[in-house]
Amino acid sequence: VILTVTANAALDVTYEVPVLRHGEPHRVERVHTRAGGKGVNVARVLHALGEDVVATGLVGGLTGDAILADLEDAVPEAFLRVAGESRRTVAVVSADDGAATVLNEPGPQVSEREWDQFAEAYHQLAAAATLVVLSGSLPPGVPADAYAELIVRTQVPVLLDTDGDALRFGIEARPALVKPNLAELTGLLGHPPEDVLAACRALPVPAAVTLGEAGAVLVTADGAWRAVPPERVRGNPTGAGDAFAAGLARGLAAGEPWPDVLADAMALAAAAVAAPVAGEVDPAAYASFRGAVVVEEA
Amino acid sequence: VILTVTANAALDVTYEVPVLRHGEPHRVERVHTRAGGKGVNVARVLHALGEDVVATGLVGGLTGDAILADLEDAVPEAFLRVAGESRRTVAVVSADDGAATVLNEPGPQVSEREWDQFAEAYHQLAAAATLVVLSGSLPPGVPADAYAELIVRTQVPVLLDTDGDALRFGIEARPALVKPNLAELTGLLGHPPEDVLAACRALPVPAAVTLGEAGAVLVTADGAWRAVPPERVRGNPTGAGDAFAAGLARGLAAGEPWPDVLADAMALAAAAVAAPVAGEVDPAAYASFRGAVVVEEA
Repeated sequence: VILTVTANAALDVTYEVPVLRHGEPHRVERVHTRAGGKGVNVARVLHALGEDVVATGLVGGLTGDAILADLEDAVPEAFLRVAGESRRTVAVVSADDGAATVLNEPGPQVSEREWDQFAEAYHQLAAAATLVVLSGSLPPGVPADAYAELIVRTQVPVLLDTDGDALRFGIEARPALVKPNLAELTGLLGHPPEDVLAACRALPVPAAVTLGEAGAVLVTADGAWRAVPPERVRGNPTGAGDAFAAGLARGLAAGEPWPDVLADAMALAAAAVAAPVAGEVDPAAYASFRGAVVVEEA
Repeated sequence: VILTVTANAALDVTYEVPVLRHGEPHRVERVHTRAGGKGVNVARVLHALGEDVVATGLVGGLTGDAILADLEDAVPEAFLRVAGESRRTVAVVSADDGAATVLNEPGPQVSEREWDQFAEAYHQLAAAATLVVLSGSLPPGVPADAYAELIVRTQVPVLLDTDGDALRFGIEARPALVKPNLAELTGLLGHPPEDVLAACRALPVPAAVTLGEAGAVLVTADGAWRAVPPERVRGNPTGAGDAFAAGLARGLAAGEPWPDVLADAMALAAAAVAAPVAGEVDPAAYASFRGAVVVEEA
């Protein structure tokens, strides 16, 4: 079983408006809600692929109830309840230009005691897992080295997908793989990388970096590879990074060779862009992309 | 007891962001939530003034739970539960210019059966009331003449504060008073009024029209009056209209003369603008404004 961790789970809310005007009132035409946070999205993709997966993390309050209610029929979960209120993300999509203006609440204040309880539950779940995915931001109150602390005591491979100080500290704990996008890699370096491959080679851990339409690179001690999407895929890039992480997690858990892991992750990311609903994977697109992704040594 | 009706109660959420940029992600710095909807706001002001008040209306879902939890210590309530999910309003306040970009969810779909149940409960509550305030929009699924249907069977005076077709139909049922703002009066007429007093005189019911910083007018069969705020009040005008309605309701319920009703409502509205929290009334400001509002025959 693959275990995904969403420390700061969210209820992702989408508001559709005809046009968004600063300082004005708007009538929202349609409201969509869905459990989210990167680890939840990864678990959803893995579950859709038929993988054995459990989603854990922290939820709280009425928004936590809504998150768990949405997960109930979607993904096996083992979340811990906290006293605070889980966050919402509100994406305001304006029909005139299709742009999404996103508002991310900070998330619940988590006490040291609550995090310790979670860590204990996590280590029990991780002991039964083949691989762990640690995803997204840490909630307020949790120290930036909390992922690092989990990683050092985890016996199975860990895929770490976070940013900022949580990524910086996490890398020091030597996860099996990190998955920054270009913005997250820039944050880690303190400046935009002149050469992504060289920047990854300087890291003490394997790294897969997504580059949007340009594809992705994977740099490990065994070599470096570049994956190019099969074609210019049109659609919604939201959730493509999480589909990519799901592909990495599945390939790593199965012990596949690195180039195959990268190719499969790239195909899943492209299939997520092609799917009409953000965060879902178009199965037909995935099937056709799987053989069409080109992976070259870099 | 004054009964306030909020057919489409809301959880009013405020997001503080440093600056709002179209199409960008934002980290929300602070989140405030509070039960809202015009009738709830009116009840809150009346309760703060020491008036005997009960708030009723429809709530549903987890957002309904949050609304009732917020009301629990604030205002006596007798809301009916419906199956749908109550709406949220999200006000995104950007610190750079103080502007509020507001997103109003539509509210729960209410069935005919649910509305009939509410109407029955409403008439029992109204039979024990001295005055009823019907406030705000009707939720989806409820016909536009629903307020009118309530009004014709209500034995006590009704203050109607709504807009669009609900206001148009409601006026035909002859409430004791309507309280449109200039935008709502414009919607009712189909065009901006050339002369607000003349437009009000053409209505078959007494009307109090708020005019923002210019004050308010009240037109009845007995005469017409204009109220001017005591000074240029600085602050947050959100909720001032509901404080004005609370003043009208209290004065009407007590049988005060029209000019006194208008003066008191004007002082409350000015005191709401002066209060730091939207929808609350600054007691010291109210006390000082009460004697300072000027009401003249118009």
